[in-house]
Amino acid sequence: MTQQAERHRPVLDRVETPADLRRLPETQLRQLADELRAEVIDAVSVTGGHLGAGLGVVELTTAIHYVFETPDDKLIWDVSHQCYPHKILTGRKDRIRTLRQGGGLSGFTSRAESVYDPFGAAHSSTSISAGLGHAIARDHKGAHNQVISVIGDGAMSAGMAYEAMNNAGALRSRMVVILNDNDMSIAPPVGAMSAYLSRILSSRSYRSVRGAMRDLSHQFPRPVREAARRAEEYTRGLFTGGTLFEELGFYYVGPIDGHNLEHLLPVLRNVRDTEGGAPILVHCVTQKGKGYEPAEGAADKYHGVAKFDVVTGKQAKPTPQAPSYTGTFAKALIQEAEADDRVMAVTAAMPGGTGLDKFGARFPERTFDVGIAEQHAVTFCAGLACEGMKPFAAIYSTFLQRAYDQVVHDVAIQNLPVRFAIDRAGMVGADGVTHQGSYDVTYLGTLPNFTLMAAGDEAELMHMVATAAAFDAGPIAVRYPRGEGLGVAMPERGQVLEIGKGRVVREGTKVAILSYGGRLGEACTAADELAARGLSTTVADARFAKPLDRDLVRRLAQEHEVLLTVEEGAIGGFATQVMSFLAEHGLLDHGLKIRPMHLPDRFIDHDKPYQQYEAAGLNAHHMVAKALDALGIADAAATADLTRTAARGSFRAV
Amino acid sequence: MTQQAERHRPVLDRVETPADLRRLPETQLRQLADELRAEVIDAVSVTGGHLGAGLGVVELTTAIHYVFETPDDKLIWDVSHQCYPHKILTGRKDRIRTLRQGGGLSGFTSRAESVYDPFGAAHSSTSISAGLGHAIARDHKGAHNQVISVIGDGAMSAGMAYEAMNNAGALRSRMVVILNDNDMSIAPPVGAMSAYLSRILSSRSYRSVRGAMRDLSHQFPRPVREAARRAEEYTRGLFTGGTLFEELGFYYVGPIDGHNLEHLLPVLRNVRDTEGGAPILVHCVTQKGKGYEPAEGAADKYHGVAKFDVVTGKQAKPTPQAPSYTGTFAKALIQEAEADDRVMAVTAAMPGGTGLDKFGARFPERTFDVGIAEQHAVTFCAGLACEGMKPFAAIYSTFLQRAYDQVVHDVAIQNLPVRFAIDRAGMVGADGVTHQGSYDVTYLGTLPNFTLMAAGDEAELMHMVATAAAFDAGPIAVRYPRGEGLGVAMPERGQVLEIGKGRVVREGTKVAILSYGGRLGEACTAADELAARGLSTTVADARFAKPLDRDLVRRLAQEHEVLLTVEEGAIGGFATQVMSFLAEHGLLDHGLKIRPMHLPDRFIDHDKPYQQYEAAGLNAHHMVAKALDALGIADAAATADLTRTAARGSFRAV
Repeated sequence: MTQQAERHRPVLDRVETPADLRRLPETQLRQLADELRAEVIDAVSVTGGHLGAGLGVVELTTAIHYVFETPDDKLIWDVSHQCYPHKILTGRKDRIRTLRQGGGLSGFTSRAESVYDPFGAAHSSTSISAGLGHAIARDHKGAHNQVISVIGDGAMSAGMAYEAMNNAGALRSRMVVILNDNDMSIAPPVGAMSAYLSRILSSRSYRSVRGAMRDLSHQFPRPVREAARRAEEYTRGLFTGGTLFEELGFYYVGPIDGHNLEHLLPVLRNVRDTEGGAPILVHCVTQKGKGYEPAEGAADKYHGVAKFDVVTGKQAKPTPQAPSYTGTFAKALIQEAEADDRVMAVTAAMPGGTGLDKFGARFPERTFDVGIAEQHAVTFCAGLACEGMKPFAAIYSTFLQRAYDQVVHDVAIQNLPVRFAIDRAGMVGADGVTHQGSYDVTYLGTLPNFTLMAAGDEAELMHMVATAAAFDAGPIAVRYPRGEGLGVAMPERGQVLEIGKGRVVREGTKVAILSYGGRLGEACTAADELAARGLSTTVADARFAKPLDRDLVRRLAQEHEVLLTVEEGAIGGFATQVMSFLAEHGLLDHGLKIRPMHLPDRFIDHDKPYQQYEAAGLNAHHMVAKALDALGIADAAATADLTRTAARGSFRAV
Repeated sequence: MTQQAERHRPVLDRVETPADLRRLPETQLRQLADELRAEVIDAVSVTGGHLGAGLGVVELTTAIHYVFETPDDKLIWDVSHQCYPHKILTGRKDRIRTLRQGGGLSGFTSRAESVYDPFGAAHSSTSISAGLGHAIARDHKGAHNQVISVIGDGAMSAGMAYEAMNNAGALRSRMVVILNDNDMSIAPPVGAMSAYLSRILSSRSYRSVRGAMRDLSHQFPRPVREAARRAEEYTRGLFTGGTLFEELGFYYVGPIDGHNLEHLLPVLRNVRDTEGGAPILVHCVTQKGKGYEPAEGAADKYHGVAKFDVVTGKQAKPTPQAPSYTGTFAKALIQEAEADDRVMAVTAAMPGGTGLDKFGARFPERTFDVGIAEQHAVTFCAGLACEGMKPFAAIYSTFLQRAYDQVVHDVAIQNLPVRFAIDRAGMVGADGVTHQGSYDVTYLGTLPNFTLMAAGDEAELMHMVATAAAFDAGPIAVRYPRGEGLGVAMPERGQVLEIGKGRVVREGTKVAILSYGGRLGEACTAADELAARGLSTTVADARFAKPLDRDLVRRLAQEHEVLLTVEEGAIGGFATQVMSFLAEHGLLDHGLKIRPMHLPDRFIDHDKPYQQYEAAGLNAHHMVAKALDALGIADAAATADLTRTAARGSFRAV
């Protein structure tokens, strides 16, 4: 079966933009939705990406663009991994098979990409805050456009969504929040809010169109509204369970069936045409993976998929060449937990991504998924540590940003031995700019009391997990990249490292490359190249950014003409620790050709990680070029060689 | 009246620890509370500090320690500026007049200070997360101690509190949350949650003791509980308004009068003796400033006070020598807003501290207090910026940490022109370790797209506010210290600065001091000292950390033997921007005596700011010593001079 032959989309073919969509008769929308769903499946089958979430909102996407005047009306998708149908309907149909590819469409909404994306997202729970900003600005300008934020039930567990509702409910600016309740975020959601939403659903049947309209009619006339409010809300609460949102100042409508256009369209029209200042929450129930049998039947609802066969749903996952860092972390942590029952693990709604699903299967009583709630996760760990537990907070570098104050205020200042397992350090590939793990070495390295480690390979990660488990003197973090390790020999069990001691991987005399983290393989490749040019090169793995191995750094500085520091992070991290030490101790007073190699001062878009490091200038040939440049060597041969190195992708391009 | 004569405390004198308290007959507790209140007033009258909040919890503090077995039972105060009565009752009575003084008691709870402080705090809304960690660890160990978190109604507006309730309600570990509802946080609270709590109070009278006991009795027997739960909660919701907390999985008791020991004691005993896993929320109503007439009558309820006269309540506020930075910011922003109606201001529950109370009085429609909700505040600003507004997010350096992910994900990546007015940069004095503004230059400087400014004096702040208002190309921040400026001549109106251009304050030839921010005055003093020794010294005000004034930095490096960078921030900030530029451009290749002077790698406790900078090594004489040391000059005369410099407090010690 060729995909060409499959792609018969008579209605969708006539829709380039929402204006085209709005010219269709309502009777054709069901078919449009079916074609849209087929197109999403087909596109993702060739690109890979987020599938289940988009399939769940095909009808909702169609209905919103049909009822509202996008892009004048602002439609903000929370997280926005469900935006593929939206992209297809908003002028990006012809590029949909470039999703998440280098130079192609982002897998998320992006202001830079389209006027139909008024707010970019990828981290969760920002849409109500952003929508409220749009709404208040509109009011200030005296405009009358609508603002619609679509947020999942999982995203509702984040404090930020609550903060925004708390403020929106008080400001009473007009906005529509559509709660897309699919009882799934990335994993099944947890927490009391999730249980509460389930109780709403179990306590009442779907609202009929007439019922939902009646809900809205209660808003009028204005003078009556306030008087009737109290009695009504409790009465409604009694029967509908909508009270929690209403207590926060929202007008609650629902639940309605998010796959039934005959319900969605009249309800959204009524919401649109309702006047008055109160924000409205429309509770839509959808099914993740809807309409694609393999997705509906899978536990993860095909949340994120590799390329796959449309008919069978079978994903083309490449055979791994080496253990993944995530899997290695899980394995190592299980070993530590077997040896010490104080070891506990905490995740913020990412059990699969962090490997804690495996840990949880082995130690369910010591595994805590707190929901999309990084702030709480970290301070919860601080509380555990106060009582002698050994909590591991397993949080991606990019998501730990959301708990920064808790890291400073609750962990670092109190010097509590919370262990941070920081996955997705450095470039992350197709998820792109919003998910890069670029800043953790900087924002943690600036804090007193912290011990910071980065794994140079997957065996090192074993040792570092063991080191973190053993270390009780304060907070400690280990960072490691997404994806596979280098394929090195693996120890039976991680060994506790000496704190603040690096290791020399190979000895040289002219150039020193001091690597912190996952660029170690590239550094070795660069050393090969340099050695081949007669430039004897030392490669050292710092292991620790804090405390720094001062003896090692001093020796490298004193015994080499050029010192490159290399890290998969932004300015202010490992290089800063090295340069500050050297400067403070006068080791730069008499000259050192030191070159800090870190991520550049710009954001790096989605692409294959190797290409992202190309863009960042952090591959082996960049190190070679940097060393040559520092030495004043820049001949034609070098340039040719560098091009060759780049072309063959050097060290294990992923 | 001498304070000595006033201090007749017959019951309190017999209480050193809570064990002593628990030996008192219940009939003496009223008197104890009265004496405790008097002691708090008296102590704060000589130290200054947080008064209103502590006065509001005198009875609650007494009752908790009387009913619960502290320190085995863990009592966690949210924010903890209300902890002075707690400190008096827990072994710190003899040191209470050292509160917030250098070397004295912290104004907040502190694990390092007392076993009765199981968790330190000062930022808001951490107590439920921390308490849950303690509770889960207790369960794991098979222990049976109680965990009590006391949180204010204002703190409930923060998302973190919601995240914790969401998790606690689901985990069903046993803990007690006491909601101290005084309808005040630092300013009157805002938002829908606050309105909701008010509705609870207006909808029902205080629960009688019998009523509250009956509430609790509903929890038993266990088998019945679950069956009865649904019907009961809605019935209760109908009459008591407790539903929102109950929907989040808490058992709600209250409201009860938090000043009435005859209500507090039996209710707390019942809560203590109630078995079962559900977390319990006790809704206590208190009055901030209770029992001290001047505080009760003041709009701010004497939230934070200078030393004062106990009888009159009159505070001894020193006459300012120069305009404060905060006041200057407010004045400048009002000017900008008068000229451009797109200028808006957003605060997270700190209208007074940020100066936005003044702005709000002038422009109520363009001022937004979103509650203790920094995450929402920043993304709300991002939304406003999308629509062409010019939002100023006025947030202390330390509190902006709580919105770091929003700064990265919503502002920096999207390159939105949100203006950050970062007050309390550097050392903040008596609030101490949790409030120091140490990290913002580092955690913002590492982000692409950001423009960073720091004010060298109060006139510069005027210019920088004007610059931020005019700058639409991306996010821009200006940081400035707490307290008074240098007393420089003030412009009529701020002038827009050239982006990325510093200024040379005085020209020299041997030593260069490159200052970023509020150490500029000290740098000038240091230059005087160095010049007096025949060391011609340049002082430059960088103004911008990003983009760096590269020409200026290059010139300073090339034309001087020593280059000191000086900033009131931690490692990774301004010095990193300078050193990275120099290293990348080979300007360190041939030697430069560069010395980065930033905050040291340890936390700095409460004290006067000058003393804190003494501890940090960032006063003028430290700069002198650093320059001399770099030059290899370290004679006895220098040492003597330096001591003199330190003794006279150098440049405007505060």
